[in-house]
Amino acid sequence: MKTITELLNWRYATKKFDASKKLTDTEVNLLKEAVNLTASSYGLQPYRVLDVRTPELREQLKAAAFGQPQLTDASHVFVFTAFNDLTDEHVDEYIALSARTKNIPLEAISGYGDFIKSVFKPRTQEDKHNWAARQAYIAVGNLIDAAASIGIDSCPMEGFDAPAFDKILGLTDTDAKSVVVVTLGHRSAEDETQSAPKVRKALDQVFVTL
Amino acid sequence: MKTITELLNWRYATKKFDASKKLTDTEVNLLKEAVNLTASSYGLQPYRVLDVRTPELREQLKAAAFGQPQLTDASHVFVFTAFNDLTDEHVDEYIALSARTKNIPLEAISGYGDFIKSVFKPRTQEDKHNWAARQAYIAVGNLIDAAASIGIDSCPMEGFDAPAFDKILGLTDTDAKSVVVVTLGHRSAEDETQSAPKVRKALDQVFVTL
Repeated sequence: MKTITELLNWRYATKKFDASKKLTDTEVNLLKEAVNLTASSYGLQPYRVLDVRTPELREQLKAAAFGQPQLTDASHVFVFTAFNDLTDEHVDEYIALSARTKNIPLEAISGYGDFIKSVFKPRTQEDKHNWAARQAYIAVGNLIDAAASIGIDSCPMEGFDAPAFDKILGLTDTDAKSVVVVTLGHRSAEDETQSAPKVRKALDQVFVTL
Repeated sequence: MKTITELLNWRYATKKFDASKKLTDTEVNLLKEAVNLTASSYGLQPYRVLDVRTPELREQLKAAAFGQPQLTDASHVFVFTAFNDLTDEHVDEYIALSARTKNIPLEAISGYGDFIKSVFKPRTQEDKHNWAARQAYIAVGNLIDAAASIGIDSCPMEGFDAPAFDKILGLTDTDAKSVVVVTLGHRSAEDETQSAPKVRKALDQVFVTL
Protein backbone atom coordinates (compact mmCIF):
# COMPACT_ATOMS: atom_id res chain seq x y z
CA MET A 1 0.00 0.00 0.00
CA LYS A 2 1.23 3.47 -0.86
CA THR A 3 1.50 6.22 1.73
CA ILE A 4 -1.67 8.13 2.49
CA THR A 5 -0.29 11.25 0.78
CA GLU A 6 0.48 9.27 -2.35
CA LEU A 7 -3.04 7.85 -2.30
CA LEU A 8 -4.62 11.27 -1.82
CA ASN A 9 -2.60 12.68 -4.67
CA TRP A 10 -3.47 9.72 -6.90
CA ARG A 11 -7.20 10.01 -6.32
CA TYR A 12 -9.37 12.68 -7.91
CA ALA A 13 -13.08 13.19 -8.37
CA THR A 14 -13.46 10.90 -11.35
CA LYS A 15 -15.65 12.47 -14.02
CA LYS A 16 -15.45 9.70 -16.59
CA PHE A 17 -15.32 6.06 -15.58
CA ASP A 18 -14.35 3.19 -17.87
CA ALA A 19 -17.71 1.46 -18.04
CA SER A 20 -16.08 -1.81 -19.07
CA LYS A 21 -14.09 -2.13 -15.85
CA LYS A 22 -16.02 -3.64 -12.97
CA LEU A 23 -15.05 -4.06 -9.35
CA THR A 24 -14.71 -7.64 -8.17
CA ASP A 25 -16.93 -8.99 -5.41
CA THR A 26 -13.89 -9.12 -3.15
CA GLU A 27 -13.22 -5.42 -3.74
CA VAL A 28 -16.83 -4.44 -3.16
CA ASN A 29 -16.93 -6.43 0.07
CA LEU A 30 -13.76 -4.79 1.29
CA LEU A 31 -15.22 -1.34 0.60
CA LYS A 32 -18.42 -2.21 2.45
CA GLU A 33 -16.40 -3.58 5.36
CA ALA A 34 -14.40 -0.33 5.43
CA VAL A 35 -17.57 1.78 5.49
CA ASN A 36 -18.97 -0.36 8.27
CA LEU A 37 -15.78 0.09 10.29
CA THR A 38 -16.03 3.89 10.07
CA ALA A 39 -16.14 5.82 13.32
CA SER A 40 -19.53 7.31 14.20
CA SER A 41 -20.79 9.31 17.14
CA TYR A 42 -21.44 6.89 20.03
CA GLY A 43 -21.01 4.13 17.43
CA LEU A 44 -24.63 4.58 16.37
CA GLN A 45 -24.06 4.29 12.58
CA PRO A 46 -27.19 6.33 11.77
CA TYR A 47 -27.18 5.62 8.06
CA ARG A 48 -27.85 3.03 5.42
CA VAL A 49 -26.08 2.74 2.08
CA LEU A 50 -27.86 1.68 -1.09
CA ASP A 51 -25.72 -0.26 -3.54
CA VAL A 52 -27.71 0.52 -6.67
CA ARG A 53 -27.10 -2.08 -9.39
CA THR A 54 -30.31 -2.16 -11.41
CA PRO A 55 -29.56 -0.44 -14.76
CA GLU A 56 -33.04 1.11 -15.01
CA LEU A 57 -32.65 2.69 -11.56
CA ARG A 58 -29.20 3.94 -12.50
CA GLU A 59 -30.62 5.62 -15.60
CA GLN A 60 -33.29 7.32 -13.51
CA LEU A 61 -30.72 8.49 -10.96
CA LYS A 62 -28.61 9.92 -13.76
CA ALA A 63 -31.58 11.89 -15.04
CA ALA A 64 -32.11 13.24 -11.51
CA ALA A 65 -28.41 14.17 -11.27
CA PHE A 66 -28.10 16.56 -14.20
CA GLY A 67 -27.18 13.69 -16.51
CA GLN A 68 -23.82 13.10 -14.85
CA PRO A 69 -22.43 9.97 -16.54
CA GLN A 70 -20.86 8.52 -13.39
CA LEU A 71 -24.29 7.26 -12.31
CA THR A 72 -24.41 4.82 -15.19
CA ASP A 73 -20.73 4.37 -16.15
CA ALA A 74 -19.24 3.70 -12.73
CA SER A 75 -18.99 0.09 -11.67
CA HIS A 76 -20.82 0.79 -8.41
CA VAL A 77 -23.06 3.54 -7.07
CA PHE A 78 -23.35 3.88 -3.31
CA VAL A 79 -26.17 6.20 -2.22
CA PHE A 80 -25.70 7.20 1.42
CA THR A 81 -28.96 7.74 3.25
CA ALA A 82 -29.07 9.31 6.70
CA PHE A 83 -31.74 8.55 9.27
CA ASN A 84 -34.43 11.21 9.56
CA ASP A 85 -34.36 10.92 13.32
CA LEU A 86 -32.43 9.29 16.13
CA THR A 87 -34.93 7.57 18.36
CA ASP A 88 -34.83 5.68 21.65
CA GLU A 89 -35.31 2.51 19.58
CA HIS A 90 -32.07 3.19 17.72
CA VAL A 91 -30.26 3.55 21.02
CA ASP A 92 -31.88 0.38 22.39
CA GLU A 93 -30.78 -1.54 19.28
CA TYR A 94 -27.25 -0.23 19.68
CA ILE A 95 -27.10 -1.14 23.36
CA ALA A 96 -28.42 -4.65 22.61
CA LEU A 97 -25.84 -5.07 19.84
CA SER A 98 -23.10 -3.80 22.13
CA ALA A 99 -24.07 -6.21 24.91
CA ARG A 100 -24.12 -9.15 22.47
CA THR A 101 -20.78 -8.12 20.94
CA LYS A 102 -19.07 -7.69 24.29
CA ASN A 103 -20.86 -10.66 25.82
CA ILE A 104 -22.04 -8.71 28.83
CA PRO A 105 -25.53 -8.45 30.35
CA LEU A 106 -27.77 -5.74 28.94
CA GLU A 107 -28.18 -4.29 32.41
CA ALA A 108 -24.47 -3.54 32.60
CA ILE A 109 -24.77 -0.86 29.91
CA SER A 110 -28.42 0.18 29.98
CA GLY A 111 -27.40 3.26 31.98
CA TYR A 112 -25.13 4.27 29.12
CA GLY A 113 -28.07 3.88 26.78
CA ASP A 114 -30.13 6.19 28.98
CA PHE A 115 -27.30 8.71 28.81
CA ILE A 116 -27.22 8.62 25.00
CA LYS A 117 -31.01 9.04 24.89
CA SER A 118 -30.77 12.07 27.16
CA VAL A 119 -28.22 13.64 24.81
CA PHE A 120 -30.54 13.40 21.82
CA LYS A 121 -33.83 14.14 23.57
CA PRO A 122 -33.62 17.97 23.47
CA ARG A 123 -32.56 18.07 19.81
CA THR A 124 -35.03 18.72 17.00
CA GLN A 125 -35.65 16.05 14.41
CA GLU A 126 -33.99 18.21 11.73
CA ASP A 127 -30.95 18.60 13.93
CA LYS A 128 -30.78 14.86 14.47
CA HIS A 129 -31.02 14.25 10.73
CA ASN A 130 -28.19 16.73 10.16
CA TRP A 131 -26.15 14.92 12.81
CA ALA A 132 -26.84 11.61 11.07
CA ALA A 133 -25.82 13.07 7.72
CA ARG A 134 -22.52 14.28 9.20
CA GLN A 135 -21.75 10.75 10.38
CA ALA A 136 -22.38 9.52 6.83
CA TYR A 137 -19.83 12.04 5.59
CA ILE A 138 -17.15 10.57 7.86
CA ALA A 139 -17.86 7.29 6.07
CA VAL A 140 -17.52 9.05 2.71
CA GLY A 141 -14.05 10.27 3.65
CA ASN A 142 -13.10 6.80 4.76
CA LEU A 143 -14.60 5.13 1.68
CA ILE A 144 -12.62 7.37 -0.67
CA ASP A 145 -9.44 6.38 1.17
CA ALA A 146 -10.35 2.70 1.26
CA ALA A 147 -11.04 2.71 -2.47
CA ALA A 148 -7.77 4.50 -3.28
CA SER A 149 -5.87 2.05 -1.08
CA ILE A 150 -6.79 -0.77 -3.48
CA GLY A 151 -6.50 1.26 -6.68
CA ILE A 152 -10.18 2.04 -7.08
CA ASP A 153 -11.36 5.42 -8.29
CA SER A 154 -14.27 7.27 -6.79
CA CYS A 155 -16.35 10.38 -7.17
CA PRO A 156 -18.26 11.81 -4.21
CA MET A 157 -21.35 13.58 -5.52
CA GLU A 158 -23.79 16.06 -4.03
CA GLY A 159 -25.14 17.42 -7.29
CA PHE A 160 -28.43 15.59 -7.46
CA ASP A 161 -32.10 16.17 -6.76
CA ALA A 162 -32.36 14.46 -3.38
CA PRO A 163 -36.18 14.22 -3.21
CA ALA A 164 -36.16 12.74 -6.74
CA PHE A 165 -33.51 10.22 -5.67
CA ASP A 166 -35.67 9.29 -2.67
CA LYS A 167 -38.65 8.72 -4.92
CA ILE A 168 -36.69 6.58 -7.40
CA LEU A 169 -35.15 4.54 -4.59
CA GLY A 170 -38.40 4.06 -2.68
CA LEU A 171 -37.24 6.11 0.29
CA THR A 172 -40.14 8.55 0.43
CA ASP A 173 -41.91 8.20 3.80
CA THR A 174 -39.29 5.80 5.12
CA ASP A 175 -36.94 6.44 8.05
CA ALA A 176 -34.05 7.79 5.97
CA LYS A 177 -33.27 10.00 3.00
CA SER A 178 -30.41 10.30 0.55
CA VAL A 179 -27.69 12.79 1.43
CA VAL A 180 -24.61 12.00 -0.65
CA VAL A 181 -23.46 9.59 -3.34
CA VAL A 182 -20.12 7.94 -4.01
CA THR A 183 -19.60 6.37 -7.43
CA LEU A 184 -16.82 3.79 -7.66
CA GLY A 185 -14.91 2.11 -10.46
CA HIS A 186 -11.91 2.75 -12.66
CA ARG A 187 -11.09 6.01 -14.41
CA SER A 188 -11.32 6.17 -18.17
CA ALA A 189 -8.03 6.91 -19.93
CA GLU A 190 -9.98 9.66 -21.67
CA ASP A 191 -10.88 11.49 -18.44
CA GLU A 192 -8.83 14.67 -18.81
CA THR A 193 -9.48 15.78 -15.24
CA GLN A 194 -7.08 13.10 -13.98
CA SER A 195 -4.12 15.13 -15.21
CA ALA A 196 -5.32 18.47 -13.83
CA PRO A 197 -3.27 19.78 -10.90
CA LYS A 198 -5.05 19.68 -7.56
CA VAL A 199 -6.47 23.02 -6.47
CA ARG A 200 -5.85 23.43 -2.74
CA LYS A 201 -5.47 26.36 -0.39
CA ALA A 202 -2.13 26.99 1.27
CA LEU A 203 -1.76 24.96 4.47
CA ASP A 204 -1.53 28.10 6.60
CA GLN A 205 -4.85 29.28 5.25
CA VAL A 206 -6.59 26.10 6.38
CA PHE A 207 -4.68 25.54 9.64
CA VAL A 208 -4.34 28.11 12.37
CA THR A 209 -2.16 27.41 15.41
CA LEU A 210 -3.38 28.75 18.72
CA MET B 1 1.55 0.45 5.29
CA LYS B 2 -1.04 -2.05 6.46
CA THR B 3 -4.23 -2.70 4.52
CA ILE B 4 -7.09 -0.30 5.13
CA THR B 5 -9.07 -2.97 6.97
CA GLU B 6 -6.13 -3.65 9.27
CA LEU B 7 -5.82 0.08 9.95
CA LEU B 8 -9.53 0.44 10.65
CA ASN B 9 -9.45 -2.49 13.04
CA TRP B 10 -6.33 -1.13 14.75
CA ARG B 11 -7.80 2.30 15.36
CA TYR B 12 -10.42 3.05 18.01
CA ALA B 13 -11.78 6.17 19.63
CA THR B 14 -8.93 6.69 22.06
CA LYS B 15 -10.19 7.60 25.51
CA LYS B 16 -6.86 7.84 27.28
CA PHE B 17 -3.78 9.19 25.53
CA ASP B 18 -0.24 8.82 26.81
CA ALA B 19 0.47 12.47 27.58
CA SER B 20 4.21 11.88 27.38
CA LYS B 21 4.13 10.84 23.73
CA LYS B 22 4.13 13.73 21.29
CA LEU B 23 3.75 13.72 17.54
CA THR B 24 6.77 14.88 15.59
CA ASP B 25 6.59 17.96 13.38
CA THR B 26 6.90 15.68 10.36
CA GLU B 27 3.89 13.67 11.49
CA VAL B 28 1.81 16.77 12.19
CA ASN B 29 2.68 18.21 8.79
CA LEU B 30 1.71 14.98 7.08
CA LEU B 31 -1.67 15.00 8.86
CA LYS B 32 -2.29 18.60 7.87
CA GLU B 33 -1.32 17.84 4.29
CA ALA B 34 -3.75 14.91 4.31
CA VAL B 35 -6.58 17.08 5.62
CA ASN B 36 -5.82 19.68 2.98
CA LEU B 37 -5.94 17.03 0.26
CA THR B 38 -9.41 15.88 1.34
CA ALA B 39 -12.15 16.02 -1.28
CA SER B 40 -14.72 18.78 -0.81
CA SER B 41 -17.73 19.86 -2.78
CA TYR B 42 -16.54 21.88 -5.80
CA GLY B 43 -13.14 21.89 -4.07
CA LEU B 44 -14.26 24.82 -1.94
CA GLN B 45 -12.75 23.63 1.39
CA PRO B 46 -15.25 25.63 3.46
CA TYR B 47 -13.53 25.09 6.80
CA ARG B 48 -10.58 26.05 8.92
CA VAL B 49 -8.86 23.85 11.46
CA LEU B 50 -7.47 25.18 14.71
CA ASP B 51 -4.38 23.38 15.99
CA VAL B 52 -4.74 24.29 19.65
CA ARG B 53 -1.41 24.06 21.48
CA THR B 54 -1.64 26.61 24.29
CA PRO B 55 -2.03 24.65 27.55
CA GLU B 56 -4.37 27.23 29.10
CA LEU B 57 -6.69 27.06 26.10
CA ARG B 58 -6.61 23.27 26.23
CA GLU B 59 -7.64 23.36 29.90
CA GLN B 60 -10.55 25.65 29.07
CA LEU B 61 -11.63 23.42 26.17
CA LYS B 62 -11.54 20.40 28.48
CA ALA B 63 -13.82 22.19 30.95
CA ALA B 64 -16.22 22.94 28.07
CA ALA B 65 -16.12 19.27 26.98
CA PHE B 66 -17.37 17.58 30.13
CA GLY B 67 -13.82 17.23 31.41
CA GLN B 68 -12.82 14.71 28.78
CA PRO B 69 -9.08 14.16 29.30
CA GLN B 70 -8.22 13.88 25.60
CA LEU B 71 -8.35 17.67 25.32
CA THR B 72 -5.30 18.03 27.55
CA ASP B 73 -3.58 14.61 27.29
CA ALA B 74 -3.55 14.19 23.52
CA SER B 75 -0.48 15.41 21.71
CA HIS B 76 -2.57 17.52 19.34
CA VAL B 77 -6.10 18.90 19.30
CA PHE B 78 -7.60 19.83 15.95
CA VAL B 79 -10.81 21.84 16.22
CA PHE B 80 -12.65 21.82 12.89
CA THR B 81 -14.59 25.00 12.23
CA ALA B 82 -17.05 25.28 9.36
CA PHE B 83 -17.84 28.51 7.58
CA ASN B 84 -21.11 30.12 8.64
CA ASP B 85 -21.91 30.94 5.04
CA LEU B 86 -20.70 30.31 1.53
CA THR B 87 -20.46 33.65 -0.19
CA ASP B 88 -19.65 34.90 -3.67
CA GLU B 89 -16.30 36.00 -2.26
CA HIS B 90 -15.46 32.42 -1.32
CA VAL B 91 -16.23 31.34 -4.85
CA ASP B 92 -14.18 34.17 -6.32
CA GLU B 93 -11.22 33.18 -4.13
CA TYR B 94 -11.55 29.58 -5.25
CA ILE B 95 -11.73 30.53 -8.92
CA ALA B 96 -8.68 32.80 -8.57
CA LEU B 97 -6.76 29.99 -6.82
CA SER B 98 -7.84 27.52 -9.48
CA ALA B 99 -6.70 29.83 -12.30
CA ARG B 100 -3.32 30.35 -10.62
CA THR B 101 -2.88 26.64 -9.92
CA LYS B 102 -3.77 25.63 -13.46
CA ASN B 103 -1.98 28.60 -15.00
CA ILE B 104 -4.97 29.64 -17.07
CA PRO B 105 -6.63 33.05 -17.42
CA LEU B 106 -9.34 33.87 -14.88
CA GLU B 107 -11.76 34.48 -17.72
CA ALA B 108 -11.49 30.85 -18.81
CA ILE B 109 -13.24 29.65 -15.66
CA SER B 110 -15.23 32.64 -14.45
CA GLY B 111 -18.33 31.08 -15.99
CA TYR B 112 -17.80 28.06 -13.77
CA GLY B 113 -17.59 30.41 -10.81
CA ASP B 114 -20.92 31.94 -11.78
CA PHE B 115 -22.38 28.45 -11.93
CA ILE B 116 -21.18 27.62 -8.41
CA LYS B 117 -22.58 30.91 -7.12
CA SER B 118 -25.95 30.11 -8.69
CA VAL B 119 -26.00 26.75 -6.91
CA PHE B 120 -25.58 28.35 -3.48
CA LYS B 121 -27.67 31.48 -4.04
CA PRO B 122 -31.07 29.93 -3.21
CA ARG B 123 -29.82 28.19 -0.07
CA THR B 124 -30.29 29.63 3.42
CA GLN B 125 -27.26 30.57 5.47
CA GLU B 126 -28.01 27.77 7.92
CA ASP B 127 -28.16 25.29 5.06
CA LYS B 128 -24.84 26.54 3.75
CA HIS B 129 -23.26 26.19 7.18
CA ASN B 130 -24.59 22.63 7.41
CA TRP B 131 -23.14 21.94 3.98
CA ALA B 132 -19.79 23.35 5.11
CA ALA B 133 -19.87 21.20 8.25
CA ARG B 134 -20.47 18.09 6.17
CA GLN B 135 -17.37 18.83 4.12
CA ALA B 136 -15.39 19.10 7.35
CA TYR B 137 -16.64 15.64 8.31
CA ILE B 138 -15.20 14.16 5.10
CA ALA B 139 -11.87 15.57 6.30
CA VAL B 140 -12.43 13.96 9.71
CA GLY B 141 -12.85 10.55 8.07
CA ASN B 142 -9.73 11.11 6.05
CA LEU B 143 -7.73 12.43 9.02
CA ILE B 144 -8.54 9.35 11.11
CA ASP B 145 -7.28 7.15 8.26
CA ALA B 146 -4.18 9.28 7.67
CA ALA B 147 -3.31 9.13 11.36
CA ALA B 148 -3.80 5.36 11.54
CA SER B 149 -1.66 4.92 8.42
CA ILE B 150 1.35 6.24 10.35
CA GLY B 151 0.51 4.62 13.67
CA ILE B 152 -1.13 7.62 15.27
CA ASP B 153 -4.20 7.29 17.44
CA SER B 154 -7.14 9.63 17.27
CA CYS B 155 -10.47 10.38 18.87
CA PRO B 156 -13.15 12.26 16.95
CA MET B 157 -15.25 14.20 19.44
CA GLU B 158 -18.64 15.89 19.26
CA GLY B 159 -19.33 15.99 22.99
CA PHE B 160 -18.51 19.60 23.72
CA ASP B 161 -20.27 22.91 24.24
CA ALA B 162 -19.75 24.44 20.81
CA PRO B 163 -20.64 28.06 21.72
CA ALA B 164 -18.27 27.81 24.69
CA PHE B 165 -15.53 26.48 22.40
CA ASP B 166 -16.15 29.37 20.03
CA LYS B 167 -15.81 31.85 22.88
CA ILE B 168 -12.58 30.27 24.18
CA LEU B 169 -11.10 30.15 20.69
CA GLY B 170 -12.11 33.69 19.75
CA LEU B 171 -14.53 32.55 17.07
CA THR B 172 -17.60 34.37 18.28
CA ASP B 173 -18.76 36.83 15.58
CA THR B 174 -16.21 35.52 13.08
CA ASP B 175 -17.00 33.76 9.81
CA ALA B 176 -16.83 30.20 11.18
CA LYS B 177 -17.77 28.13 14.18
CA SER B 178 -16.54 24.89 15.70
CA VAL B 179 -18.32 21.72 14.62
CA VAL B 180 -16.14 18.74 15.50
CA VAL B 181 -12.84 17.96 17.18
CA VAL B 182 -10.19 15.33 16.51
CA THR B 183 -7.63 14.68 19.22
CA LEU B 184 -4.42 12.98 18.09
CA GLY B 185 -1.53 11.23 19.81
CA HIS B 186 -0.66 7.81 21.14
CA ARG B 187 -2.89 5.57 23.22
CA SER B 188 -2.02 4.96 26.82
CA ALA B 189 -1.27 1.34 27.67
CA GLU B 190 -3.84 1.81 30.41
CA ASP B 191 -6.70 2.66 28.06
CA GLU B 192 -8.91 -0.37 28.47
CA THR B 193 -11.16 0.57 25.55
CA GLN B 194 -8.40 -0.43 23.12
CA SER B 195 -9.07 -4.11 23.84
CA ALA B 196 -12.87 -3.88 23.58
CA PRO B 197 -14.33 -5.60 20.52
CA LYS B 198 -15.69 -3.25 17.90
CA VAL B 199 -19.47 -2.89 17.97
CA ARG B 200 -20.75 -2.81 14.41
CA LYS B 201 -24.00 -3.67 12.70
CA ALA B 202 -24.15 -6.62 10.32
CA LEU B 203 -23.11 -5.59 6.81
CA ASP B 204 -26.53 -6.46 5.40
CA GLN B 205 -28.14 -4.08 7.86
CA VAL B 206 -26.04 -1.17 6.64
CA PHE B 207 -25.94 -2.04 2.93
CA VAL B 208 -28.99 -2.68 0.80
CA THR B 209 -28.63 -3.81 -2.80
CA LEU B 210 -31.16 -2.46 -5.27
